[in-house]
Amino acid sequence: MSNLKHNEQSNFDATLLRLSLDRTSRVSLQAQLIAALRAILSESRAPMGLRLPSSRQLSQELSVSRTTVVGAYDQLVSEGYLHTKTGGGTFVADQLPHLSPPPPAAKDHPTPPKAWVPFESAIPDQSLFPHRLWSRHLERAWAKPDAALLGKPDPFGWYPLRRAISSHLSAWRSLDCRPEQVLITSGTSEALEIIFRSLATQGVRAAVEDPGWQTMRQVLGALGAEVQPIPIDARGLDANRIDDAASVAIVTPSRHYPTGISMPMGRRTALLAWAAHRSGLVIEDDYDSEFRYQGHPLPSLAGLDGLKQTIYLGSFSKLLSPALRIGYLVLPDTLIASARGYLDIYAARASLVPQPALATFMDSGEFAVHLRRMRRIYARRQAHLIEALSPSAGLIDVSADPSGMHLCAALLQCLRRRATDQTIATVAQSRGLQVKALSSYSILADPRQGLVLGYAAFDEPTLSAAAQVLNRVLGEFMKDRS
Amino acid sequence: MSNLKHNEQSNFDATLLRLSLDRTSRVSLQAQLIAALRAILSESRAPMGLRLPSSRQLSQELSVSRTTVVGAYDQLVSEGYLHTKTGGGTFVADQLPHLSPPPPAAKDHPTPPKAWVPFESAIPDQSLFPHRLWSRHLERAWAKPDAALLGKPDPFGWYPLRRAISSHLSAWRSLDCRPEQVLITSGTSEALEIIFRSLATQGVRAAVEDPGWQTMRQVLGALGAEVQPIPIDARGLDANRIDDAASVAIVTPSRHYPTGISMPMGRRTALLAWAAHRSGLVIEDDYDSEFRYQGHPLPSLAGLDGLKQTIYLGSFSKLLSPALRIGYLVLPDTLIASARGYLDIYAARASLVPQPALATFMDSGEFAVHLRRMRRIYARRQAHLIEALSPSAGLIDVSADPSGMHLCAALLQCLRRRATDQTIATVAQSRGLQVKALSSYSILADPRQGLVLGYAAFDEPTLSAAAQVLNRVLGEFMKDRS
Repeated sequence: MSNLKHNEQSNFDATLLRLSLDRTSRVSLQAQLIAALRAILSESRAPMGLRLPSSRQLSQELSVSRTTVVGAYDQLVSEGYLHTKTGGGTFVADQLPHLSPPPPAAKDHPTPPKAWVPFESAIPDQSLFPHRLWSRHLERAWAKPDAALLGKPDPFGWYPLRRAISSHLSAWRSLDCRPEQVLITSGTSEALEIIFRSLATQGVRAAVEDPGWQTMRQVLGALGAEVQPIPIDARGLDANRIDDAASVAIVTPSRHYPTGISMPMGRRTALLAWAAHRSGLVIEDDYDSEFRYQGHPLPSLAGLDGLKQTIYLGSFSKLLSPALRIGYLVLPDTLIASARGYLDIYAARASLVPQPALATFMDSGEFAVHLRRMRRIYARRQAHLIEALSPSAGLIDVSADPSGMHLCAALLQCLRRRATDQTIATVAQSRGLQVKALSSYSILADPRQGLVLGYAAFDEPTLSAAAQVLNRVLGEFMKDRS
Repeated sequence: MSNLKHNEQSNFDATLLRLSLDRTSRVSLQAQLIAALRAILSESRAPMGLRLPSSRQLSQELSVSRTTVVGAYDQLVSEGYLHTKTGGGTFVADQLPHLSPPPPAAKDHPTPPKAWVPFESAIPDQSLFPHRLWSRHLERAWAKPDAALLGKPDPFGWYPLRRAISSHLSAWRSLDCRPEQVLITSGTSEALEIIFRSLATQGVRAAVEDPGWQTMRQVLGALGAEVQPIPIDARGLDANRIDDAASVAIVTPSRHYPTGISMPMGRRTALLAWAAHRSGLVIEDDYDSEFRYQGHPLPSLAGLDGLKQTIYLGSFSKLLSPALRIGYLVLPDTLIASARGYLDIYAARASLVPQPALATFMDSGEFAVHLRRMRRIYARRQAHLIEALSPSAGLIDVSADPSGMHLCAALLQCLRRRATDQTIATVAQSRGLQVKALSSYSILADPRQGLVLGYAAFDEPTLSAAAQVLNRVLGEFMKDRS
């Protein structure tokens, strides 16, 4: 052994033999010894390969049983701090576990944050969200929390939030409900789980709109429900087309997702008549109806129905932020007990953290102020995008949409002859745009062809630049490609 | 009966007789009735002493079997909402359970907040949580949010939190992992969904401990997995007993839930050998291992395994607060792509709101300070409870538990001859205590008999008072009951 190593070994031995254990402690001598050794090995960065005293020697020095030392050594071997050699001896391991380089201080993320790219849809402009105001509501809710926040939580969620939602729906969606009918969820998938897992049995057949939200179809499949996709027309879903076997219909009547078509009154009453006749259930997914720019929205279907056979689904994802993961169900009275029975088994998943803050944010009126502000901004952005897409007016249908956060631009015939919406979307993506093909929302044959273009999250210069790129892409499809 | 009381009785009767139950629901009529009655009794603050309709009358009104109503009434008697009188009749109890004096903001809620009642288990003492500190982390995270918080979220969750968890696990659980292996969830149910829905196909068979966490069995059933319950012994689960058909084993090795048994090294290595031989998967549910009071915990099973065939589940529910709804998975490298594929379809459910605050709370060291503080307090509370239960030392086994947040007190033979743990739990509940029967965690025949007594959330005077009641209850069982 070299002189240097000899010194290191001496120092190491001295440290170990100087250990002292507390015999009055509740903690066993062995546990103390393990902890002490582990600390020495980590902190001293003991060079690999140093030898530990024999168990006999250490046990004599520390006045503990040899079994104690043997057990401690064994533990540290199993943890990787020490190793034994054939022929005897216990040594510091070659690579001590748990010594990792300190995380880089400057970079918090392994990859740069991914900003949203036009025309990503279904997202609000979060840079316009009143963060400072919101963070104060968070701080106030939790600095000295209401005793009820610390007690046994109601599986239906924070009551003042349910009450605030009830008021909001009354004012904005002509839907009257009691807070007791409102259930806070972590989003639409959980909402569907609660509904379908507390409904009858497997084999529930649900009629859904086609085109429609694909994820929902997958969630329904995973829940054991059969799905009947019904192609919509210019007036949305036609209840006459619902199979005899279907007992649930899931619709987006205020603004069909993703085409934007609004279901007129005749179709609404027909759907409710179907539900009454069939003892069926209608699930109304009303995801961003607050953003109406022209005219007056028809009242919610659930409001029309008096919440007798309709469950209403709402969400804050597009109104505020998808990061919240807060949505809600409004249930007919007849289904409340069933939902509570379900949640007695499977706990509700919505975090309580944002709930009281959201309640005070809504009660203070600031939520409504924010919605009205965003509504004005989104309306302007839609108009701006339509203008910026006017060079493509002969290729895609860019008529104004009285509401929403995205345009659904049908491919016009001359373009349709040349390309599918999927092809166009792929090319656009290769040019840095996020465009969705309307046909990707369909599972039926011969789907409508169009492009889904979100605009809400992007300012006007960004929309102009993106529109330029899209115009160019579309124009290229019209050139002779021989 | 006075006029006032007569009116109250009339109103009460009317409410009850207007109840409606959903016959198409998967949730049993009895479960619905129990939940509905419980809600009415809590919300309406029905004056004590009001009489309930006879079981015959209610069964006729609601068109359910009389057995259903009798069963519902019995349950609510055992929960303390109702009581019966010699001579007949069922009445609203004199003191409804879970009623604590209202806080200043009581008018926000239709019912007073339900404080936790001893010996409710699996909950931390939230009154000792550093709320003000936490609320500042929340405020700072969201007042001027990091651009990455507003951009496209990583389905695995907020990176700095994943990194903080990785550091925590290294220090506290001897588990080395990269942040990239950490996935933030809304809790264990979602964790199981992610795992089972991204694993092979239906028909996965999972070996689980018996006794064990009942909700997990229900979640597994709903996910289409078969369950093989394996009775544990003094050393936990024995891998030799796992069926040939099982490919997953779900265990709580550090501290079996709910008995507290720690799985020794021999059993751990046997389980890992099983996984290697079978190409199986071990899921380690490590729910409150930070609260160890004596001795030194064995490193996590996943750490021992080097995260090759083990998925590690952790949660902040008991460490901080169940209201957060934040938990996490640590995945072997081989399963990361699969989980990402799953989350591409079904979005992750954990709210983003608490995540950046939790990350800074952990990075600042305040989380570790809090854990160590709670560990000391919980250790004292356990000792205090054991002392307070010493009068019952011949009836239940109240030996010290080196870790955890609840005692699992086996019924000793003399008591076992006189009563089942379920009976004792029911009587205890009627006296205002929340005691769980150990046998209720079992589905196998001839389950162990014991009482699960949570102590973490209750101060010493509360524990003394509750122990007095429990001692009395146990004593009564030993009296001659002719």
